[in-house]
Amino acid sequence: MEKIEHIGIAVKNLKISNETFTGILGIESYKTEEIESEGVKTSFFNTGPNKIELLEATKKDSPIARFIEKKGEGIHHIAFAVKDIYQEVERLKKQGYTPLSSEPKKGADNKLVVFLHPKQTNGVLIELCMEREDGKK
Amino acid sequence: MEKIEHIGIAVKNLKISNETFTGILGIESYKTEEIESEGVKTSFFNTGPNKIELLEATKKDSPIARFIEKKGEGIHHIAFAVKDIYQEVERLKKQGYTPLSSEPKKGADNKLVVFLHPKQTNGVLIELCMEREDGKK
Repeated sequence: MEKIEHIGIAVKNLKISNETFTGILGIESYKTEEIESEGVKTSFFNTGPNKIELLEATKKDSPIARFIEKKGEGIHHIAFAVKDIYQEVERLKKQGYTPLSSEPKKGADNKLVVFLHPKQTNGVLIELCMEREDGKK
Repeated sequence: MEKIEHIGIAVKNLKISNETFTGILGIESYKTEEIESEGVKTSFFNTGPNKIELLEATKKDSPIARFIEKKGEGIHHIAFAVKDIYQEVERLKKQGYTPLSSEPKKGADNKLVVFLHPKQTNGVLIELCMEREDGKK
């Protein structure tokens, strides 16, 4: 793992939470992006080499909506930047960890992403992510 | 905020969780430290410019014990590195945020730390931390 790429925080209202985190971090969100397939609208803040990603559900049955219903607002996942996501997935599989998808998928912020099941990682939803080479599409 | 200094993860068993995170991160914990006043034993991993801090309660009524009892294992807090913790606390107070202690306190890893209440920060326990100048005592 090269670094914490970002921390994902599940929020009920992206607009209000943007103001909250602008207050805390002393900077504005630099990007808002909607991932329709995941039923989520995201907002990103830079904090040095890392990012904070706020996540608001856009669909009632989306993962973020279910998370908030069950646990309330709060930290949803940690994403680690990796050099080669395919190689990392193979390394983790060999150690007995189970990725939530068989292949890395397109995520927000021009990334290829894969998640590990929180049952195997002390209740922490862990994302591995790698910059996509084919650019933003 | 300069960067995410670390992510704190509440765990039931530090020894087992050290093995879990060694597996995930592909590296060993570089330090174990007990903070008796907080009733916690910690273990640190480096991930580039950031750290992962595992936290096991050493007392039944400690904050980590209460967290796990209420929410189970998982991410407990995000810590941001700041240049001047006193200045940051003043800035945040002016914006209406309430630190959990009136003054920064000594924390793990040779830091001065202060926390913001999760009620004001979308359910996220946020720590500000700054390296202590008086060294490890």
